[in-house]
Amino acid sequence: MIKVVLIGSGNVAHHLIASFLQIQNFSNEFELIQVFSRSSTVFLQLDASKITSDYNLIKEADIYIIAVSDSAITEVSNQIPFKNKLVVHTSGSVSIDKLNNSNRKGVFYPLQTFSKNKEINFKEIPIFIECQNEADLILLEKIAHLLSDSVYRIDSSQRKSLHVAAVFVNNFVNHLYKLANDICTEHQLPFEVLKPLIQETTEKIMIMQPENAQTGPASRNDIETIKSHLESITNENQKKIYELLTQSILANAKKL
Amino acid sequence: MIKVVLIGSGNVAHHLIASFLQIQNFSNEFELIQVFSRSSTVFLQLDASKITSDYNLIKEADIYIIAVSDSAITEVSNQIPFKNKLVVHTSGSVSIDKLNNSNRKGVFYPLQTFSKNKEINFKEIPIFIECQNEADLILLEKIAHLLSDSVYRIDSSQRKSLHVAAVFVNNFVNHLYKLANDICTEHQLPFEVLKPLIQETTEKIMIMQPENAQTGPASRNDIETIKSHLESITNENQKKIYELLTQSILANAKKL
Repeated sequence: MIKVVLIGSGNVAHHLIASFLQIQNFSNEFELIQVFSRSSTVFLQLDASKITSDYNLIKEADIYIIAVSDSAITEVSNQIPFKNKLVVHTSGSVSIDKLNNSNRKGVFYPLQTFSKNKEINFKEIPIFIECQNEADLILLEKIAHLLSDSVYRIDSSQRKSLHVAAVFVNNFVNHLYKLANDICTEHQLPFEVLKPLIQETTEKIMIMQPENAQTGPASRNDIETIKSHLESITNENQKKIYELLTQSILANAKKL
Repeated sequence: MIKVVLIGSGNVAHHLIASFLQIQNFSNEFELIQVFSRSSTVFLQLDASKITSDYNLIKEADIYIIAVSDSAITEVSNQIPFKNKLVVHTSGSVSIDKLNNSNRKGVFYPLQTFSKNKEINFKEIPIFIECQNEADLILLEKIAHLLSDSVYRIDSSQRKSLHVAAVFVNNFVNHLYKLANDICTEHQLPFEVLKPLIQETTEKIMIMQPENAQTGPASRNDIETIKSHLESITNENQKKIYELLTQSILANAKKL
Protein backbone atom coordinates (compact mmCIF):
# COMPACT_ATOMS: atom_id res chain seq x y z
CA MET A 1 0.00 0.00 0.00
CA ILE A 2 1.46 3.33 -1.12
CA LYS A 3 0.49 6.08 1.33
CA VAL A 4 0.31 9.56 -0.15
CA VAL A 5 0.05 12.98 1.48
CA LEU A 6 -0.83 15.83 -0.84
CA ILE A 7 0.03 19.42 0.05
CA GLY A 8 -1.81 22.25 -1.66
CA SER A 9 -5.25 23.57 -2.56
CA GLY A 10 -4.79 25.19 -5.98
CA ASN A 11 -5.86 23.96 -9.41
CA VAL A 12 -3.27 21.17 -9.73
CA ALA A 13 -3.94 19.98 -6.14
CA HIS A 14 -7.68 20.03 -6.80
CA HIS A 15 -7.43 17.80 -9.90
CA LEU A 16 -4.84 15.49 -8.34
CA ILE A 17 -7.06 14.94 -5.29
CA ALA A 18 -10.09 14.19 -7.46
CA SER A 19 -8.10 11.66 -9.51
CA PHE A 20 -6.43 10.05 -6.48
CA LEU A 21 -9.83 9.54 -4.86
CA GLN A 22 -11.10 7.87 -8.02
CA ILE A 23 -8.06 5.60 -8.18
CA GLN A 24 -8.33 4.39 -4.62
CA ASN A 25 -11.86 3.20 -5.30
CA PHE A 26 -10.39 0.69 -7.74
CA SER A 27 -6.96 0.01 -6.29
CA ASN A 28 -5.88 -1.30 -2.91
CA GLU A 29 -2.26 -0.48 -3.68
CA PHE A 30 -2.78 3.18 -3.05
CA GLU A 31 -4.27 5.56 -0.48
CA LEU A 32 -4.43 9.34 -0.23
CA ILE A 33 -4.13 9.41 3.53
CA GLN A 34 -4.11 13.19 4.05
CA VAL A 35 -4.35 16.58 2.39
CA PHE A 36 -2.60 19.61 3.81
CA SER A 37 -4.33 22.86 2.97
CA ARG A 38 -3.71 26.26 4.55
CA SER A 39 -6.96 27.59 3.16
CA SER A 40 -10.32 26.25 4.20
CA THR A 41 -11.08 25.02 0.69
CA VAL A 42 -13.68 22.29 0.70
CA PHE A 43 -12.69 19.17 -1.22
CA LEU A 44 -15.83 17.36 -2.26
CA GLN A 45 -15.79 13.63 -1.50
CA LEU A 46 -12.82 14.08 0.85
CA ASP A 47 -13.48 13.29 4.49
CA ALA A 48 -12.86 16.37 6.66
CA SER A 49 -10.76 14.28 9.06
CA LYS A 50 -8.25 13.80 6.25
CA ILE A 51 -7.57 17.51 5.90
CA THR A 52 -5.11 19.41 8.06
CA SER A 53 -3.70 22.93 8.09
CA ASP A 54 -1.09 22.20 10.77
CA TYR A 55 2.33 20.95 9.69
CA ASN A 56 2.79 19.25 13.10
CA LEU A 57 -0.17 17.01 12.33
CA ILE A 58 1.12 15.76 8.99
CA LYS A 59 1.08 11.98 8.90
CA GLU A 60 3.85 9.59 8.02
CA ALA A 61 3.57 8.52 4.38
CA ASP A 62 5.56 6.99 1.52
CA ILE A 63 5.41 10.13 -0.55
CA TYR A 64 4.61 13.83 -0.06
CA ILE A 65 3.38 15.61 -3.17
CA ILE A 66 3.78 19.39 -2.98
CA ALA A 67 1.29 21.00 -5.41
CA VAL A 68 1.66 24.67 -4.51
CA SER A 69 2.75 27.78 -6.41
CA ASP A 70 6.37 27.74 -7.64
CA SER A 71 7.52 30.41 -5.21
CA ALA A 72 6.18 28.49 -2.16
CA ILE A 73 7.76 25.09 -2.95
CA THR A 74 10.99 25.56 -0.96
CA GLU A 75 9.24 26.97 2.10
CA VAL A 76 6.64 24.17 2.12
CA SER A 77 9.34 21.50 1.73
CA ASN A 78 11.16 23.03 4.75
CA GLN A 79 8.03 22.49 6.88
CA ILE A 80 7.65 18.75 6.36
CA PRO A 81 8.38 17.28 9.82
CA PHE A 82 10.13 14.11 8.62
CA LYS A 83 13.55 13.03 7.38
CA ASN A 84 14.58 10.80 4.47
CA LYS A 85 11.06 10.62 3.01
CA LEU A 86 10.28 11.01 -0.70
CA VAL A 87 9.11 14.60 -1.29
CA VAL A 88 8.19 15.72 -4.82
CA HIS A 89 6.88 18.92 -6.35
CA THR A 90 4.61 19.24 -9.40
CA SER A 91 6.10 22.27 -11.14
CA GLY A 92 7.30 22.46 -14.74
CA SER A 93 9.87 25.14 -14.10
CA VAL A 94 11.27 24.69 -10.57
CA SER A 95 14.52 22.75 -10.18
CA ILE A 96 14.52 19.58 -8.10
CA ASP A 97 17.26 21.23 -5.99
CA LYS A 98 14.80 23.74 -4.54
CA LEU A 99 13.39 21.02 -2.30
CA ASN A 100 14.74 20.76 1.27
CA ASN A 101 17.82 18.51 1.63
CA SER A 102 16.53 16.59 4.65
CA ASN A 103 14.29 14.44 2.45
CA ARG A 104 14.73 12.47 -0.82
CA LYS A 105 13.74 14.67 -3.74
CA GLY A 106 11.63 14.18 -6.83
CA VAL A 107 9.44 15.86 -9.42
CA PHE A 108 6.01 14.77 -10.59
CA TYR A 109 5.01 17.17 -13.38
CA PRO A 110 1.63 16.69 -15.10
CA LEU A 111 1.73 18.68 -18.36
CA GLN A 112 -1.68 20.34 -18.64
CA THR A 113 -3.47 23.62 -18.00
CA PHE A 114 -5.73 23.12 -15.00
CA SER A 115 -8.85 25.14 -14.23
CA LYS A 116 -10.85 24.31 -11.13
CA ASN A 117 -14.20 24.46 -12.88
CA LYS A 118 -13.28 22.35 -15.90
CA GLU A 119 -13.05 18.60 -15.59
CA ILE A 120 -10.11 16.88 -17.21
CA ASN A 121 -9.23 13.29 -18.00
CA PHE A 122 -5.98 12.53 -16.19
CA LYS A 123 -5.50 9.33 -18.21
CA GLU A 124 -4.50 11.46 -21.23
CA ILE A 125 -2.19 13.86 -19.41
CA PRO A 126 1.52 13.13 -19.81
CA ILE A 127 3.33 13.00 -16.47
CA PHE A 128 7.05 13.74 -16.33
CA ILE A 129 8.99 12.32 -13.40
CA GLU A 130 12.46 12.86 -11.99
CA CYS A 131 14.16 11.44 -8.88
CA GLN A 132 17.62 11.16 -7.38
CA ASN A 133 17.61 7.37 -7.10
CA GLU A 134 16.16 4.45 -9.04
CA ALA A 135 13.96 3.05 -6.22
CA ASP A 136 12.17 6.39 -5.82
CA LEU A 137 11.82 6.67 -9.58
CA ILE A 138 10.12 3.28 -9.71
CA LEU A 139 7.71 4.27 -6.93
CA LEU A 140 6.93 7.57 -8.62
CA GLU A 141 6.46 5.80 -11.95
CA LYS A 142 3.99 3.40 -10.32
CA ILE A 143 1.89 6.27 -8.94
CA ALA A 144 2.07 8.16 -12.25
CA HIS A 145 0.90 5.07 -14.14
CA LEU A 146 -2.12 4.75 -11.85
CA LEU A 147 -3.15 8.24 -13.03
CA SER A 148 -2.00 8.40 -16.63
CA ASP A 149 -1.25 6.31 -19.69
CA SER A 150 1.80 8.41 -20.60
CA VAL A 151 4.63 8.67 -18.12
CA TYR A 152 8.12 9.91 -19.03
CA ARG A 153 11.42 10.05 -17.18
CA ILE A 154 13.18 13.34 -17.96
CA ASP A 155 15.83 15.51 -16.29
CA SER A 156 15.40 19.06 -14.94
CA SER A 157 16.88 20.70 -18.05
CA GLN A 158 14.49 18.84 -20.37
CA ARG A 159 11.61 19.71 -18.06
CA LYS A 160 12.44 23.41 -18.25
CA SER A 161 12.47 23.28 -22.07
CA LEU A 162 9.22 21.33 -22.07
CA HIS A 163 7.71 24.04 -19.88
CA VAL A 164 8.90 26.69 -22.36
CA ALA A 165 7.30 24.71 -25.21
CA ALA A 166 4.10 24.50 -23.14
CA VAL A 167 4.15 28.29 -22.71
CA PHE A 168 4.29 28.61 -26.52
CA VAL A 169 1.38 26.23 -27.25
CA ASN A 170 -0.82 27.28 -24.34
CA ASN A 171 -0.10 30.71 -22.80
CA PHE A 172 0.99 32.37 -26.03
CA VAL A 173 -1.69 30.70 -28.15
CA ASN A 174 -4.35 31.82 -25.67
CA HIS A 175 -2.95 35.35 -25.81
CA LEU A 176 -3.27 35.31 -29.61
CA TYR A 177 -6.94 34.37 -29.08
CA LYS A 178 -7.20 37.39 -26.77
CA LEU A 179 -5.71 39.71 -29.41
CA ALA A 180 -8.05 38.28 -32.08
CA ASN A 181 -10.95 38.85 -29.69
CA ASP A 182 -9.85 42.49 -29.33
CA ILE A 183 -9.72 42.88 -33.13
CA CYS A 184 -13.22 41.38 -33.46
CA THR A 185 -14.65 43.64 -30.76
CA GLU A 186 -13.08 46.73 -32.36
CA HIS A 187 -14.75 45.90 -35.70
CA GLN A 188 -18.18 44.80 -34.40
CA LEU A 189 -17.57 41.13 -35.20
CA PRO A 190 -18.48 38.30 -32.81
CA PHE A 191 -15.42 36.28 -31.63
CA GLU A 192 -17.66 33.20 -32.05
CA VAL A 193 -17.10 33.23 -35.83
CA LEU A 194 -13.42 32.35 -35.28
CA LYS A 195 -14.19 29.22 -33.26
CA PRO A 196 -14.57 26.76 -36.18
CA LEU A 197 -11.20 28.00 -37.49
CA ILE A 198 -9.62 27.60 -34.03
CA GLN A 199 -11.00 24.07 -33.82
CA GLU A 200 -9.78 23.11 -37.29
CA THR A 201 -6.31 24.53 -36.54
CA THR A 202 -6.10 22.16 -33.56
CA GLU A 203 -7.51 19.19 -35.45
CA LYS A 204 -4.92 19.65 -38.19
CA ILE A 205 -2.01 19.69 -35.76
CA MET A 206 -3.21 16.36 -34.32
CA ILE A 207 -2.59 14.66 -37.68
CA MET A 208 -0.07 16.87 -39.52
CA GLN A 209 3.43 18.20 -38.85
CA PRO A 210 3.25 21.92 -37.94
CA GLU A 211 5.27 22.96 -41.02
CA ASN A 212 2.86 21.08 -43.31
CA ALA A 213 -0.18 22.64 -41.64
CA GLN A 214 1.12 26.20 -42.12
CA THR A 215 -1.03 28.37 -44.41
CA GLY A 216 -1.62 32.12 -44.79
CA PRO A 217 0.03 35.15 -46.40
CA ALA A 218 3.45 34.77 -44.74
CA SER A 219 3.80 31.09 -45.66
CA ARG A 220 3.09 31.85 -49.33
CA ASN A 221 5.28 34.99 -49.26
CA ASP A 222 2.25 37.18 -50.10
CA ILE A 223 3.86 40.56 -49.31
CA GLU A 224 0.92 42.55 -50.67
CA THR A 225 -1.58 41.00 -48.21
CA ILE A 226 0.90 41.39 -45.34
CA LYS A 227 1.30 45.11 -46.14
CA SER A 228 -2.45 45.56 -46.41
CA HIS A 229 -2.96 43.80 -43.05
CA LEU A 230 -0.34 45.97 -41.36
CA GLU A 231 -2.03 49.10 -42.71
CA SER A 232 -5.35 47.99 -41.25
CA ILE A 233 -3.99 47.26 -37.73
CA THR A 234 -4.20 50.41 -35.61
CA ASN A 235 -2.99 48.97 -32.29
CA GLU A 236 0.83 49.24 -31.97
CA ASN A 237 1.20 46.12 -29.85
CA GLN A 238 -0.86 44.02 -32.29
CA LYS A 239 1.23 45.43 -35.14
CA LYS A 240 4.55 44.50 -33.48
CA ILE A 241 3.34 40.95 -32.84
CA TYR A 242 2.00 40.64 -36.40
CA GLU A 243 5.37 41.80 -37.77
CA LEU A 244 7.55 39.54 -35.63
CA LEU A 245 5.52 36.36 -36.17
CA THR A 246 5.24 37.10 -39.90
CA GLN A 247 9.03 37.56 -40.14
CA SER A 248 9.49 34.26 -38.32
CA ILE A 249 7.14 32.41 -40.71
CA LEU A 250 8.81 34.04 -43.74
CA ALA A 251 12.28 33.06 -42.51
CA ASN A 252 11.08 29.52 -41.97
CA ALA A 253 9.38 29.32 -45.38
CA LYS A 254 12.65 30.36 -47.06
CA LYS A 255 14.48 27.49 -45.37
CA LEU A 256 12.05 24.88 -46.78
CA MET B 1 -32.98 27.15 -60.19
CA ILE B 2 -29.73 28.98 -59.34
CA LYS B 3 -27.03 28.13 -61.86
CA VAL B 4 -23.49 28.37 -60.54
CA VAL B 5 -20.12 28.34 -62.33
CA LEU B 6 -17.10 27.84 -60.13
CA ILE B 7 -13.64 28.99 -61.23
CA GLY B 8 -10.58 27.50 -59.56
CA SER B 9 -8.91 24.25 -58.57
CA GLY B 10 -7.17 25.03 -55.27
CA ASN B 11 -8.15 24.04 -51.74
CA VAL B 12 -11.15 26.36 -51.42
CA ALA B 13 -12.44 25.41 -54.88
CA HIS B 14 -12.01 21.73 -54.06
CA HIS B 15 -14.10 21.93 -50.87
CA LEU B 16 -16.74 24.22 -52.43
CA ILE B 17 -17.20 21.80 -55.35
CA ALA B 18 -17.56 18.84 -52.98
CA SER B 19 -20.17 20.70 -50.91
CA PHE B 20 -22.08 22.04 -53.93
CA LEU B 21 -22.32 18.53 -55.36
CA GLN B 22 -23.72 17.28 -52.06
CA ILE B 23 -26.27 20.11 -51.95
CA GLN B 24 -27.61 19.54 -55.43
CA ASN B 25 -28.42 15.94 -54.50
CA PHE B 26 -30.95 17.31 -52.01
CA SER B 27 -32.02 20.59 -53.60
CA ASN B 28 -33.57 21.35 -56.96
CA GLU B 29 -33.09 25.07 -56.42
CA PHE B 30 -29.40 24.86 -57.19
CA GLU B 31 -27.00 23.45 -59.78
CA LEU B 32 -23.24 23.63 -60.22
CA ILE B 33 -23.37 23.72 -64.01
CA GLN B 34 -19.65 24.08 -64.70
CA VAL B 35 -16.18 24.23 -63.20
CA PHE B 36 -13.37 26.17 -64.87
CA SER B 37 -9.94 24.80 -64.10
CA ARG B 38 -6.69 25.61 -65.88
CA SER B 39 -5.01 22.58 -64.41
CA SER B 40 -6.07 19.05 -65.24
CA THR B 41 -7.08 18.38 -61.63
CA VAL B 42 -9.57 15.55 -61.37
CA PHE B 43 -12.66 16.35 -59.33
CA LEU B 44 -14.12 13.13 -58.04
CA GLN B 45 -17.87 12.80 -58.61
CA LEU B 46 -17.82 15.66 -61.12
CA ASP B 47 -18.71 14.72 -64.68
CA ALA B 48 -15.79 15.50 -67.03
CA SER B 49 -18.16 17.28 -69.42
CA LYS B 50 -18.76 19.88 -66.73
CA ILE B 51 -15.10 20.92 -66.60
CA THR B 52 -13.55 23.42 -68.99
CA SER B 53 -10.19 25.14 -69.26
CA ASP B 54 -11.28 27.53 -72.04
CA TYR B 55 -12.82 30.87 -71.04
CA ASN B 56 -14.69 30.98 -74.38
CA LEU B 57 -16.60 27.87 -73.35
CA ILE B 58 -17.81 29.23 -70.01
CA LYS B 59 -21.57 28.84 -69.75
CA GLU B 60 -24.15 31.43 -68.86
CA ALA B 61 -25.02 31.25 -65.16
CA ASP B 62 -26.60 33.25 -62.33
CA ILE B 63 -23.35 33.52 -60.43
CA TYR B 64 -19.64 33.03 -61.05
CA ILE B 65 -17.61 32.14 -57.99
CA ILE B 66 -13.89 32.86 -58.37
CA ALA B 67 -11.95 30.67 -55.93
CA VAL B 68 -8.38 31.33 -57.02
CA SER B 69 -5.29 32.78 -55.33
CA ASP B 70 -5.61 36.45 -54.29
CA SER B 71 -3.18 37.71 -56.91
CA ALA B 72 -5.10 36.03 -59.78
CA ILE B 73 -8.59 37.33 -58.91
CA THR B 74 -8.53 40.48 -61.09
CA GLU B 75 -7.10 38.70 -64.12
CA VAL B 76 -9.63 35.86 -63.85
CA SER B 77 -12.54 38.32 -63.47
CA ASN B 78 -11.32 40.09 -66.65
CA GLN B 79 -11.66 36.83 -68.59
CA ILE B 80 -15.33 36.14 -67.86
CA PRO B 81 -17.02 36.53 -71.30
CA PHE B 82 -20.27 38.05 -70.00
CA LYS B 83 -21.62 41.42 -68.88
CA ASN B 84 -23.81 42.40 -65.93
CA LYS B 85 -23.59 38.97 -64.28
CA LEU B 86 -22.94 38.44 -60.57
CA VAL B 87 -19.24 37.64 -60.09
CA VAL B 88 -17.88 37.01 -56.59
CA HIS B 89 -14.49 36.08 -55.16
CA THR B 90 -13.83 34.02 -52.02
CA SER B 91 -10.88 35.87 -50.51
CA GLY B 92 -10.64 37.27 -47.01
CA SER B 93 -8.24 40.05 -47.88
CA VAL B 94 -8.97 41.20 -51.46
CA SER B 95 -11.22 44.25 -51.91
CA ILE B 96 -14.48 43.82 -53.81
CA ASP B 97 -13.18 46.59 -56.14
CA LYS B 98 -10.53 44.30 -57.59
CA LEU B 99 -13.21 42.52 -59.64
CA ASN B 100 -13.76 43.64 -63.25
CA ASN B 101 -16.30 46.49 -63.65
CA SER B 102 -18.22 44.86 -66.50
CA ASN B 103 -20.05 42.55 -64.08
CA ARG B 104 -21.90 43.00 -60.75
CA LYS B 105 -19.50 42.38 -57.88
CA GLY B 106 -19.64 40.40 -54.68
CA VAL B 107 -17.62 38.52 -52.06
CA PHE B 108 -18.35 35.06 -50.69
CA TYR B 109 -15.74 34.44 -47.97
CA PRO B 110 -15.83 31.14 -46.06
CA LEU B 111 -13.71 31.58 -42.93
CA GLN B 112 -11.75 28.37 -42.56
CA THR B 113 -8.34 26.85 -43.29
CA PHE B 114 -8.76 24.40 -46.15
CA SER B 115 -6.48 21.44 -46.87
CA LYS B 116 -7.28 19.20 -49.81
CA ASN B 117 -6.74 15.97 -47.91
CA LYS B 118 -8.78 16.86 -44.85
CA GLU B 119 -12.55 16.73 -44.96
CA ILE B 120 -14.44 19.60 -43.40
CA ASN B 121 -18.06 20.18 -42.45
CA PHE B 122 -19.21 23.25 -44.40
CA LYS B 123 -22.35 23.55 -42.23
CA GLU B 124 -20.19 24.90 -39.39
CA ILE B 125 -18.10 27.30 -41.43
CA PRO B 126 -19.15 30.95 -41.18
CA ILE B 127 -19.59 32.57 -44.59
CA PHE B 128 -19.21 36.34 -44.95
CA ILE B 129 -20.93 37.97 -47.90
CA GLU B 130 -20.79 41.39 -49.51
CA CYS B 131 -22.52 42.78 -52.62
CA GLN B 132 -23.18 46.10 -54.28
CA ASN B 133 -26.96 45.75 -54.36
CA GLU B 134 -29.64 44.14 -52.22
CA ALA B 135 -30.96 41.68 -54.85
CA ASP B 136 -27.48 40.17 -55.31
CA LEU B 137 -26.99 40.05 -51.57
CA ILE B 138 -30.22 38.06 -51.20
CA LEU B 139 -29.13 35.60 -53.90
CA LEU B 140 -25.69 35.21 -52.34
CA GLU B 141 -27.26 34.77 -48.91
CA LYS B 142 -29.49 32.01 -50.29
CA ILE B 143 -26.50 30.10 -51.70
CA ALA B 144 -24.48 30.65 -48.52
CA HIS B 145 -27.36 29.29 -46.40
CA LEU B 146 -27.49 26.14 -48.52
CA LEU B 147 -23.89 25.50 -47.47
CA SER B 148 -23.67 26.85 -43.95
CA ASP B 149 -25.68 27.57 -40.81
CA SER B 150 -23.83 30.85 -40.16
CA VAL B 151 -23.96 33.57 -42.78
CA TYR B 152 -23.01 37.19 -42.11
CA ARG B 153 -23.26 40.39 -44.13
CA ILE B 154 -20.11 42.47 -43.61
CA ASP B 155 -18.26 45.19 -45.51
CA SER B 156 -14.75 45.04 -47.03
CA SER B 157 -13.13 46.81 -44.09
CA GLN B 158 -14.65 44.39 -41.56
CA ARG B 159 -13.63 41.48 -43.77
CA LYS B 160 -10.01 42.66 -43.80
CA SER B 161 -9.97 42.88 -39.99
CA LEU B 162 -11.61 39.48 -39.73
CA HIS B 163 -8.88 38.11 -41.97
CA VAL B 164 -6.23 39.65 -39.70
CA ALA B 165 -7.92 38.04 -36.67
CA ALA B 166 -7.93 34.72 -38.57
CA VAL B 167 -4.20 35.09 -39.21
CA PHE B 168 -3.70 35.47 -35.43
CA VAL B 169 -5.76 32.40 -34.43
CA ASN B 170 -4.66 30.14 -37.29
CA ASN B 171 -1.39 31.09 -39.05
CA PHE B 172 0.32 32.50 -35.96
CA VAL B 173 -1.00 29.80 -33.63
CA ASN B 174 0.24 27.11 -36.02
CA HIS B 175 3.63 28.83 -36.15
CA LEU B 176 3.82 28.71 -32.34
CA TYR B 177 3.19 24.95 -32.65
CA LYS B 178 6.09 24.83 -35.09
CA LEU B 179 8.39 26.67 -32.65
CA ALA B 180 7.31 24.36 -29.79
CA ASN B 181 8.03 21.39 -32.07
CA ASP B 182 11.54 22.79 -32.68
CA ILE B 183 12.11 23.16 -28.92
CA CYS B 184 10.95 19.57 -28.33
CA THR B 185 13.20 18.21 -31.08
CA GLU B 186 16.20 20.13 -29.74
CA HIS B 187 15.70 18.57 -26.28
CA GLN B 188 14.86 15.00 -27.36
CA LEU B 189 11.20 15.32 -26.38
CA PRO B 190 8.34 14.03 -28.56
CA PHE B 191 6.00 16.82 -29.79
CA GLU B 192 3.15 14.34 -29.10
CA VAL B 193 3.32 15.09 -25.36
CA LEU B 194 2.08 18.64 -26.03
CA LYS B 195 -1.06 17.49 -27.84
CA PRO B 196 -3.34 17.06 -24.78
CA LEU B 197 -2.35 20.60 -23.71
CA ILE B 198 -3.06 21.94 -27.21
CA GLN B 199 -6.47 20.24 -27.18
CA GLU B 200 -7.35 21.55 -23.71
CA THR B 201 -6.30 25.09 -24.71
CA THR B 202 -8.81 24.93 -27.56
CA GLU B 203 -11.55 23.36 -25.46
CA LYS B 204 -11.20 26.12 -22.86
CA ILE B 205 -11.55 28.89 -25.43
CA MET B 206 -14.82 27.33 -26.63
CA ILE B 207 -16.41 27.97 -23.22
CA MET B 208 -14.37 30.78 -21.62
CA GLN B 209 -13.38 34.34 -22.54
CA PRO B 210 -9.70 34.44 -23.63
CA GLU B 211 -8.71 36.70 -20.72
CA ASN B 212 -10.24 34.27 -18.21
CA ALA B 213 -8.50 31.30 -19.81
CA GLN B 214 -5.06 32.93 -19.57
CA THR B 215 -2.58 31.10 -17.32
CA GLY B 216 1.22 30.87 -17.08
CA PRO B 217 4.17 32.86 -15.73
CA ALA B 218 3.39 36.15 -17.53
CA SER B 219 -0.26 36.21 -16.44
CA ARG B 220 0.75 35.77 -12.78
CA ASN B 221 3.67 38.23 -13.13
CA ASP B 222 6.15 35.46 -12.26
CA ILE B 223 9.34 37.31 -13.31
CA GLU B 224 11.66 34.64 -11.91
CA THR B 225 10.23 31.89 -14.16
CA ILE B 226 10.23 34.24 -17.16
CA LYS B 227 13.95 35.00 -16.58
CA SER B 228 14.75 31.34 -16.15
CA HIS B 229 12.88 30.49 -19.39
CA LEU B 230 14.72 33.21 -21.32
CA GLU B 231 18.06 31.86 -20.06
CA SER B 232 17.18 28.39 -21.30
CA ILE B 233 16.16 29.50 -24.83
CA THR B 234 19.21 29.47 -27.10
CA ASN B 235 17.51 30.37 -30.40
CA GLU B 236 17.41 34.17 -30.90
CA ASN B 237 14.16 34.15 -32.88
CA GLN B 238 12.38 32.03 -30.23
CA LYS B 239 13.72 34.38 -27.57
CA LYS B 240 12.42 37.52 -29.33
CA ILE B 241 8.97 35.96 -29.73
CA TYR B 242 8.96 34.80 -26.10
CA GLU B 243 9.87 38.32 -24.95
CA LEU B 244 7.32 40.18 -27.08
CA LEU B 245 4.37 37.90 -26.27
CA THR B 246 5.31 37.87 -22.58
CA GLN B 247 5.41 41.70 -22.54
CA SER B 248 2.01 41.77 -24.20
CA ILE B 249 0.50 39.40 -21.61
CA LEU B 250 2.12 41.36 -18.75
CA ALA B 251 0.76 44.67 -20.10
CA ASN B 252 -2.67 43.13 -20.38
CA ALA B 253 -2.55 41.60 -16.88
CA LYS B 254 -1.72 45.03 -15.43
CA LYS B 255 -4.84 46.50 -17.03
CA LEU B 256 -7.13 43.92 -15.39
